[in-house]
Amino acid sequence: MLITSINNERIKNLTKLHLKKYRDEEQKFLIEGDHLISEAIKHNALLELYLLDGETNIFNFDNTTFVTKEVLDKLSEQDSSTKMIGVCKYLDNEITSNRIILLDSLQDPGNVGTIIRSAAAFGFDVILGDNTVDIYNSKTIRSTEGMIFSVKFNKTNLISFINNHNEYAYFISDMNKGENIKNFNITGKVAIIMGNEGNGISEEIKSLDLNYLHIAQNSVCESLNVGVAASIMMHELGDINE
Amino acid sequence: MLITSINNERIKNLTKLHLKKYRDEEQKFLIEGDHLISEAIKHNALLELYLLDGETNIFNFDNTTFVTKEVLDKLSEQDSSTKMIGVCKYLDNEITSNRIILLDSLQDPGNVGTIIRSAAAFGFDVILGDNTVDIYNSKTIRSTEGMIFSVKFNKTNLISFINNHNEYAYFISDMNKGENIKNFNITGKVAIIMGNEGNGISEEIKSLDLNYLHIAQNSVCESLNVGVAASIMMHELGDINE
Repeated sequence: MLITSINNERIKNLTKLHLKKYRDEEQKFLIEGDHLISEAIKHNALLELYLLDGETNIFNFDNTTFVTKEVLDKLSEQDSSTKMIGVCKYLDNEITSNRIILLDSLQDPGNVGTIIRSAAAFGFDVILGDNTVDIYNSKTIRSTEGMIFSVKFNKTNLISFINNHNEYAYFISDMNKGENIKNFNITGKVAIIMGNEGNGISEEIKSLDLNYLHIAQNSVCESLNVGVAASIMMHELGDINE
Repeated sequence: MLITSINNERIKNLTKLHLKKYRDEEQKFLIEGDHLISEAIKHNALLELYLLDGETNIFNFDNTTFVTKEVLDKLSEQDSSTKMIGVCKYLDNEITSNRIILLDSLQDPGNVGTIIRSAAAFGFDVILGDNTVDIYNSKTIRSTEGMIFSVKFNKTNLISFINNHNEYAYFISDMNKGENIKNFNITGKVAIIMGNEGNGISEEIKSLDLNYLHIAQNSVCESLNVGVAASIMMHELGDINE
């Protein structure tokens, strides 16, 4: 089947998935490019595939529709033109790891994507606070480099999560408070909490009176990028068996 | 003084600094926003300041020119409108640290900026290989979060640098070769080499037969973001006294 018009009803409906409101309604999101699509297939998350007319269906995926370049450009949220776009179902995740990371009001999609990618590397599950940028945002997905399908995550209210999961020892990542992560050792279930790029940790979380951990830095440096800080914390706290 | 026309000769010449070729010729680059400008003043790197007409000259900087919004938009390389743009002279740096990081053909300005920022945090000097993205690119500068003025860096041919600086012990950052960075200890002068985002380390550097170091990761993860990997390496190898 070939769709040639951007006014096709199915295309118009798919384009709505650019907006969070419709993604949440439909419980679906879009992905672009062969790497993400092959990851989605591997994890059984792909529902539909839209391929540029003339391209080979290398994935041999059943529910494939061919479309013109104009239609693909309409579906795409990236600058450069892509050759394939997939529709995925929302991911359903149970948090099971001994190591988790909580994201408190992070706003930059690139940072959240980077954290997802590093969480995959270091065996962390991810809890996205209500006020954190949407994980199904196209920029977030791109920054995960396909790891969105490998990492277990939940979106929830962080205060409720913490209150309901007292099996974890919680630590707030800070500029200088608490122990130096390099000298810190802990076993059992551990949670690390990262704050907003500009404002740090929210007052609500602060009021819980949790412990802190920090990364030792030169005084000249005002702060690390939050994706970097989270990754350093996860590298130190993770336990990867080689 | 107030400049109102984008056809003003001075403005036309400054706009050329958007291109690397002219930056190299003039040995000057542009910065935007109050944070970068205050860092530039602090480090004595600011030559001229262009301020939106009506704004207060909070920096009390002598060589200030007021311009209209239209002129500022012409000078700006960012999407959102800025209220001030500065002209800086190229930074002249001598490499003196016991800890350095070499960037082999990195292409993403955001990654290089992040590495500069982390280098400031962990006390590393930075050697940018010939084929690495320009440090004076506006996106690179923005990602450094002002740390471009705090970090010592050089742009040079990496092979020559390595051959001429045998006082350093060189290590290539790899996915799995060499020792696990977490178990690695070294004193003296150390250099870590990061490879390109997609292709890794270049054949030229590989042929030098250097040692490797790696960050232990889950097998599910294909790789870390190079800015993250570099930062983890620097965190482990740096020696920050608290």
